[in-house]
Amino acid sequence: MKESKYILLDHGSGGLATQKLVSDIFLPFLKNQFLEKLEDSAELDLAHGRIAFTTDTYVVDPIFFPGGDIGSLAVYGTVNDLSVKGAKPLYISLALILEEGLELDVLKKIIESIARAAEHCNVKVVTGDTKVVPKGKADKIFINTSGVGLLSKFSFSPLNIKVGDVVIVSGTLGDHGVTILTQREGLSMDCDLKSDSQPLHELTSALIEKLGDNVHAMRDPTRGGLATCLCEMANAANVEIELDESSLPIRKEVEAACEVLGLDPLYLANEGKAVFFVDKDYAQQALEIIKNFSIGKEARIIGQVISEENPRVLLKTLIGGKRVIEPLSGEPLPRIC
Amino acid sequence: MKESKYILLDHGSGGLATQKLVSDIFLPFLKNQFLEKLEDSAELDLAHGRIAFTTDTYVVDPIFFPGGDIGSLAVYGTVNDLSVKGAKPLYISLALILEEGLELDVLKKIIESIARAAEHCNVKVVTGDTKVVPKGKADKIFINTSGVGLLSKFSFSPLNIKVGDVVIVSGTLGDHGVTILTQREGLSMDCDLKSDSQPLHELTSALIEKLGDNVHAMRDPTRGGLATCLCEMANAANVEIELDESSLPIRKEVEAACEVLGLDPLYLANEGKAVFFVDKDYAQQALEIIKNFSIGKEARIIGQVISEENPRVLLKTLIGGKRVIEPLSGEPLPRIC
Repeated sequence: MKESKYILLDHGSGGLATQKLVSDIFLPFLKNQFLEKLEDSAELDLAHGRIAFTTDTYVVDPIFFPGGDIGSLAVYGTVNDLSVKGAKPLYISLALILEEGLELDVLKKIIESIARAAEHCNVKVVTGDTKVVPKGKADKIFINTSGVGLLSKFSFSPLNIKVGDVVIVSGTLGDHGVTILTQREGLSMDCDLKSDSQPLHELTSALIEKLGDNVHAMRDPTRGGLATCLCEMANAANVEIELDESSLPIRKEVEAACEVLGLDPLYLANEGKAVFFVDKDYAQQALEIIKNFSIGKEARIIGQVISEENPRVLLKTLIGGKRVIEPLSGEPLPRIC
Repeated sequence: MKESKYILLDHGSGGLATQKLVSDIFLPFLKNQFLEKLEDSAELDLAHGRIAFTTDTYVVDPIFFPGGDIGSLAVYGTVNDLSVKGAKPLYISLALILEEGLELDVLKKIIESIARAAEHCNVKVVTGDTKVVPKGKADKIFINTSGVGLLSKFSFSPLNIKVGDVVIVSGTLGDHGVTILTQREGLSMDCDLKSDSQPLHELTSALIEKLGDNVHAMRDPTRGGLATCLCEMANAANVEIELDESSLPIRKEVEAACEVLGLDPLYLANEGKAVFFVDKDYAQQALEIIKNFSIGKEARIIGQVISEENPRVLLKTLIGGKRVIEPLSGEPLPRIC
């Protein structure tokens, strides 16, 4: 077989070239006792049968960006979906769509990043799949990760949200979204703008361990941003949430970039932030636990659940007014994750 | 929001348009008690914690073909990966990459097909994700399904294969591959050529129930065909397998199309066939069990494990010679599944 520096259609044939890709690029970075069997399914023995199961596909453009890349994003994103469900992330699948012509070195860099991210989160890539499509039928690389985690004895869901609950966000808003958009527009912002792509599993597990189900609901506000996430939660819980604009943690750089681009950080994707609904008697304690983590240093109490009447989100503005926050609509921000 | 007959970038925003897609197209067909919660992860309560976990992405071109479509293929493919592991398929995830401009009616047809296929296999779609990429950055629709199944108390693996084991294939070879390729070439074959895309779960579960671990290993020979599949198994098990060319079940139509296209059915994808390695004392019984299913009517004993020396696959040809079967190499058959 001739050596190539690029992905060929043959790499997706399921034959020798696919095997070579697996043995030369995937296994050196990702090998573990499950994956190395190279069977169609991984055989997993969990402590018990209460699991969380999630899936996400990543099509972010560009594939490398300040603060991360499509590989680590694909691991952290799925780890975070399990974490905010109160599950301990254990195993992930890795399914790649590669465009013919992708440089093997680029693929290798991404797989290396996936391996590092998985190790960071203590999850194992246990099963995978690779497809190659002809040049022009995809854009470099798309990644799907699905994840399995072990649920705790507590359940976290918008349905547990109560009037009085305090809303806490674990850090600054819009970092990922604004980073991707400025990169794509080719804007060079003279500042330290970078994605917040990072895993939340340690934060959520510390909260669960110390506060149990006094934490009522958790969510990671990704696509659609905090605004869309809270609207969904208000609807699911059938409650009215009031946010305090003055308490929203937003980096100066993000604010500046948003002004230039005409964007609202409340609607921008975050890839390493969680929003928590906590029983008001435990809110202060929750905030302290979160702030103990380096990824939670900028955590803030940003609002409260004020009634069970109108399922909506209100924002108390800086100038003292109140406006209703709507979910993201219209302005598409494609390929943000 | 303006109504559209086509997928817009906005449908992937995570905002209102995404919600509308979920409520108008996905939920009407796929709704169940897990999916309807629309949370980031599904919460599953399995009987115990011994699970099989698998993933596959489907990029087949064309997306509708005689005998199936990308939707049912994505369900059956993942169901089959779990089934040949001896697991009872229970839950699948559904992650879509949609190209901007895809007709909503086409999407609806595919989702409907997914729902029917899932019902046929008694699996539930419990979690999902939708991404939209700009026109020209994907090709209509790519689908990832990951699956979770409950393992039986038996383990099925090439490592259990022994000298003397009989090799059984559950039906005719190459039907899917040759159907896709003739469709793509625009060849109109004056015959009943169609994909074998179908689920194997009932077949495998009947075999397990009646023969337990006298069935040593099972595999579904998809991409790369029976040849590549058996080469992989011979390598993993470190055994020499001898096939009898005269016993290989191949449809006349497939043989004819392969001649026209210059293809070998041994290397063509199957999407509803399994190959079994069975203890020789139970081979006849296994064959009868398989033939009792309509999808197993054409099942045949096609070979045997002859030694533990040379990990390879030999073919006793029709004219009495023997040749070594190699895994698929070189000639790429892109987007076959």
